[in-house]
Amino acid sequence: MNISILGAGNVAWHLSQALEKAGHIIQEIYSRRPENAEKLATQLTSATATNQLDFRRSKAELFILAIKDDALEEVVKQMQLPAGTTVVHTSGSQALSGLEPLREKAEIGIFYPLQTFSKEKKLDFSEIPLCIEASSLETEEKLLALARQLSKHVYQIDSQKRKFIHLAAVFACNFSNYLWQMAQEILAEQDLNLEILAPLLRETVEKALQTNPYQAQTGPARRGDQQVVQAHLDLLEGQAFHQEIYKLMSDHILRIYHPESS
Amino acid sequence: MNISILGAGNVAWHLSQALEKAGHIIQEIYSRRPENAEKLATQLTSATATNQLDFRRSKAELFILAIKDDALEEVVKQMQLPAGTTVVHTSGSQALSGLEPLREKAEIGIFYPLQTFSKEKKLDFSEIPLCIEASSLETEEKLLALARQLSKHVYQIDSQKRKFIHLAAVFACNFSNYLWQMAQEILAEQDLNLEILAPLLRETVEKALQTNPYQAQTGPARRGDQQVVQAHLDLLEGQAFHQEIYKLMSDHILRIYHPESS
Repeated sequence: MNISILGAGNVAWHLSQALEKAGHIIQEIYSRRPENAEKLATQLTSATATNQLDFRRSKAELFILAIKDDALEEVVKQMQLPAGTTVVHTSGSQALSGLEPLREKAEIGIFYPLQTFSKEKKLDFSEIPLCIEASSLETEEKLLALARQLSKHVYQIDSQKRKFIHLAAVFACNFSNYLWQMAQEILAEQDLNLEILAPLLRETVEKALQTNPYQAQTGPARRGDQQVVQAHLDLLEGQAFHQEIYKLMSDHILRIYHPESS
Repeated sequence: MNISILGAGNVAWHLSQALEKAGHIIQEIYSRRPENAEKLATQLTSATATNQLDFRRSKAELFILAIKDDALEEVVKQMQLPAGTTVVHTSGSQALSGLEPLREKAEIGIFYPLQTFSKEKKLDFSEIPLCIEASSLETEEKLLALARQLSKHVYQIDSQKRKFIHLAAVFACNFSNYLWQMAQEILAEQDLNLEILAPLLRETVEKALQTNPYQAQTGPARRGDQQVVQAHLDLLEGQAFHQEIYKLMSDHILRIYHPESS
């Protein structure tokens, strides 16, 4: 398939290379910043870097919007698509309806890789879940087939479901990362680094995924060990932020596992 | 070294086998439940399973207490050690002073593997951080040398520091696991499983460890995107627990990264 990518950020970086590897031809890499488009195009076999994409002259039949959420509306307004093309965006939090203005000429869809990307870090794309949605059954089939060439984990997910996946990811990843900040602060006070917890942290993730986090829960609040909970709150004396989180988390866990005592 | 292990749980299971692999001889496995001691002893070359350990007849020069925290006091009371032996416990949250009653006859110390263990799951022991403390410099040297035979990551950690490591682990692991429960609940409502977030979750951990969680923080609150924060709170309508956590976490992250707006 002939494909053009709008955007030259982290998603575009990994997705375009995975598509090429699967045998597709990336025609153009578009970015407002030509140097970014150029940098990505040089990673690809035959892509042209551009900051002025002429959609009518492009050979692409699929346009992938791998741009920031807040640029989506503006870019969609400016797209002058030839008839018979397909446009997808790669955002987890934007509804399919955001592409509605393009539907007169094109098929629209979502091609959302559920992963966090960095240019410096190689990833096995075949392990990345891809969430697909489209304006028609035919386009959905086409996108699903494309997705299955890239990944072993392909899901049909409508916009409403995708919102909840995004919300779950905020809990599972963004908020956990904040807890790791707090842990790091506690360790830094003792001249220690988060590194000391690395094997434990990795193993905790694997346990939660292999069984489930309800069964995998451990710790003082899980055991109903109020003495250790109180000792920990005492250790956090004077650190209101840490105490607030420790208290709320422990209260919740106690309510679940020891409803009689909370 | 001739070593006896008291306890046949998950820590004893992995530690005894790692010690044997490093060339030491496990003399006895003691457990109140003989079937547990037996099960572990059969994994080892020459260990005897027992539920009545006669310390004076044991050839062991090192006794390792890999027992539950709340059994420690009772077991320590009953130990009739020959002079010249060493006793360590493997607990993260018990102070060295808990072994003080034994000091008349023996050297005392801590040999704390900072990991969560399951019998079913093999682990590379050489990657597990070991935290060492002892009642004398000589014993400390002996324990450090032993630890270094088992692991690449050996730390001298006094009881006070160990308390803070344990506290940091509660934040980093126990509380994160609770967030994964919440994520799983959100996904289950959509007929989805936590598995869909697995690659993202693993990559989030690696990013936080490779840079640091302060820099690795992402998400709506990190970006100061109050609209998405509010939309998420609306999606959680009627789920007071989830809303409470979402609000507190987002407030904290906003206060750190966008102090002007919070």
